[in-house]
Amino acid sequence: MLADLALIGFGNVGRRFARLLSERRERLAREYNLTCRVVGIATRRHGLVCSADGVDTIEAAELVEAGGSLADLRPRGRAVDVKTSYDVIDELAKSPTHLRVVVETTTLDIAAAQPALDHVRRALEAGCHVATANKGPVAFAYRELMAVAATRGTWFLFEGVVMDGVPVFNLVRDTMPTVRIESFRGVVNSTTNHILTALEAGDDYGTALAQMQAQGIAEADPSLDVDGWDAAAKAAALSNVLLDGGITPHDVDRTGIGLETGVWAREAASRGNRVRLVASARRSSLPVVAPVELPPDDLLAGLRGIANALVLDTDTLGRVVISQLDGGLTHTAYALLSDLLTIRKSRPGNR
Amino acid sequence: MLADLALIGFGNVGRRFARLLSERRERLAREYNLTCRVVGIATRRHGLVCSADGVDTIEAAELVEAGGSLADLRPRGRAVDVKTSYDVIDELAKSPTHLRVVVETTTLDIAAAQPALDHVRRALEAGCHVATANKGPVAFAYRELMAVAATRGTWFLFEGVVMDGVPVFNLVRDTMPTVRIESFRGVVNSTTNHILTALEAGDDYGTALAQMQAQGIAEADPSLDVDGWDAAAKAAALSNVLLDGGITPHDVDRTGIGLETGVWAREAASRGNRVRLVASARRSSLPVVAPVELPPDDLLAGLRGIANALVLDTDTLGRVVISQLDGGLTHTAYALLSDLLTIRKSRPGNR
Repeated sequence: MLADLALIGFGNVGRRFARLLSERRERLAREYNLTCRVVGIATRRHGLVCSADGVDTIEAAELVEAGGSLADLRPRGRAVDVKTSYDVIDELAKSPTHLRVVVETTTLDIAAAQPALDHVRRALEAGCHVATANKGPVAFAYRELMAVAATRGTWFLFEGVVMDGVPVFNLVRDTMPTVRIESFRGVVNSTTNHILTALEAGDDYGTALAQMQAQGIAEADPSLDVDGWDAAAKAAALSNVLLDGGITPHDVDRTGIGLETGVWAREAASRGNRVRLVASARRSSLPVVAPVELPPDDLLAGLRGIANALVLDTDTLGRVVISQLDGGLTHTAYALLSDLLTIRKSRPGNR
Repeated sequence: MLADLALIGFGNVGRRFARLLSERRERLAREYNLTCRVVGIATRRHGLVCSADGVDTIEAAELVEAGGSLADLRPRGRAVDVKTSYDVIDELAKSPTHLRVVVETTTLDIAAAQPALDHVRRALEAGCHVATANKGPVAFAYRELMAVAATRGTWFLFEGVVMDGVPVFNLVRDTMPTVRIESFRGVVNSTTNHILTALEAGDDYGTALAQMQAQGIAEADPSLDVDGWDAAAKAAALSNVLLDGGITPHDVDRTGIGLETGVWAREAASRGNRVRLVASARRSSLPVVAPVELPPDDLLAGLRGIANALVLDTDTLGRVVISQLDGGLTHTAYALLSDLLTIRKSRPGNR
């Protein structure tokens, strides 16, 4: 089965996804009878390209990495003239295949989730499935987008929003049927956990943050990490999906970390405790994101460096914990691939 | 859609499953369009009952708990005369419904997995799906049983074998598509973890074991726990399913715990370390089960009491950890319900 894809956003995550798709091409064909063709790419600074016959994504990635423009790319077959990211989505919607997927990887806008929210809305309304690594749409408008998706019979998927490709939303939806989540509690931001781990060892705040930026783990604007916005967006997403929250990140009671948290982290370590940035929420109460001093036998206290963990308190299985010990671009890109396969598996003619 | 079930084994787990099915009846009908009817029950010491029109499982459970015999149960409609558990399976196979499920919950036989293995083989060969909480069949004969299931187009499912209803096998199969597991490492036996936690606190071995027996968490024969057989069976199951092992529990390099482990656990605790019974394996090497002294920053060291955790080392997502902090009969019974829904969801006319 052929899937036509449009890549909206083509930064580190979008390009890694394009390469992962290429690396797994044979496995996808063999195990899922799935062939993917990218028919459009939209970037903010490197132009756009669109062709119903497909675009060479590896060539496109190399062009963008060399500072070039996608306008210079020679697509297979006839190129279509597109001016905006919305044009690329509209072109995808014209594809005759049943599997039309918009892969949205623009960066997080914490004010109003734009333009990601408009991209996702436009795609779902046009009858395209959506897989996004952007926290904004699910954190700001989950109910509205799910309603649109239900009307159009499309998928709105976002596994990569929390703990990258480690299953969180799929874990609950696919493997815990009839189980009700009552509350959650977790460490979901890698940059602040790395900084806190470094601070308690006596290391320097600025150096620790710079390491996360160098590894591409910190957000493009690192204040989104240290001020707790990234964790608040994830808490809003978790609350919306797992606890029927209907909230935005601005409803989260949010405290970030700063230089003064370093003093606290070192003092806590001298008492055998750990300071961690904890995101938590229960049904019918708003999420809280704040640094918390944890005793050593709290499993969140054991998370070092970029490790994340989420404790789900359930009505059937008590507390279930899912944890990501490693991270990186491939993990986020894999989340999009995993969403793509969720879409694929839901079609008739399943494996 | 109607599912006809036969319960082979009707001990604590089987009876809790029957009650959970009754408690979730409405949710199963509403969310999964699934109605379940138990048409046969086989026990070792309390007789058998079979009726194509269904058996009242709550009445059956109460009868067994009062020490009675299922022969005295008056089933709905015409009772069928059955003499063995195999007769009950054969009667189920005659049901005209497409969803015929044998729910196998007999106790573990570590010598040769009998009679569970024969029950599962008979059921699959007769075209019935199988959901089992018994470790034996998957630990001793996974390849053979999957081959039979593939031939007959049936499911052989066993989510409850490791960490009860917390998803392990479903986690990998359903939420980590195209990901390859390279190795695993975990604490998978609750009884020994509870004992080790008690020993390191200076408590008594016998008392700690008795607590696990009183809570119904220890195996019927607790030597299966403390000698490492339960962990070895789980390690064999994990190796067979996730690492293509093709082994039995007798291939596992196995060391249990004893009174002398208490001395070690206390000494380790005084050094800030923890002794835990760790099960581990990699591709193309046999699993090892043995007590290991772990430093405090090893996340397995943080598991207290009956908590379990499994670290999966993957080719795509680094190390992914799934953990169960609580436990009990409902958890194991839920695993069977979860298997039942896996079978249901795979049918056409999906939710």
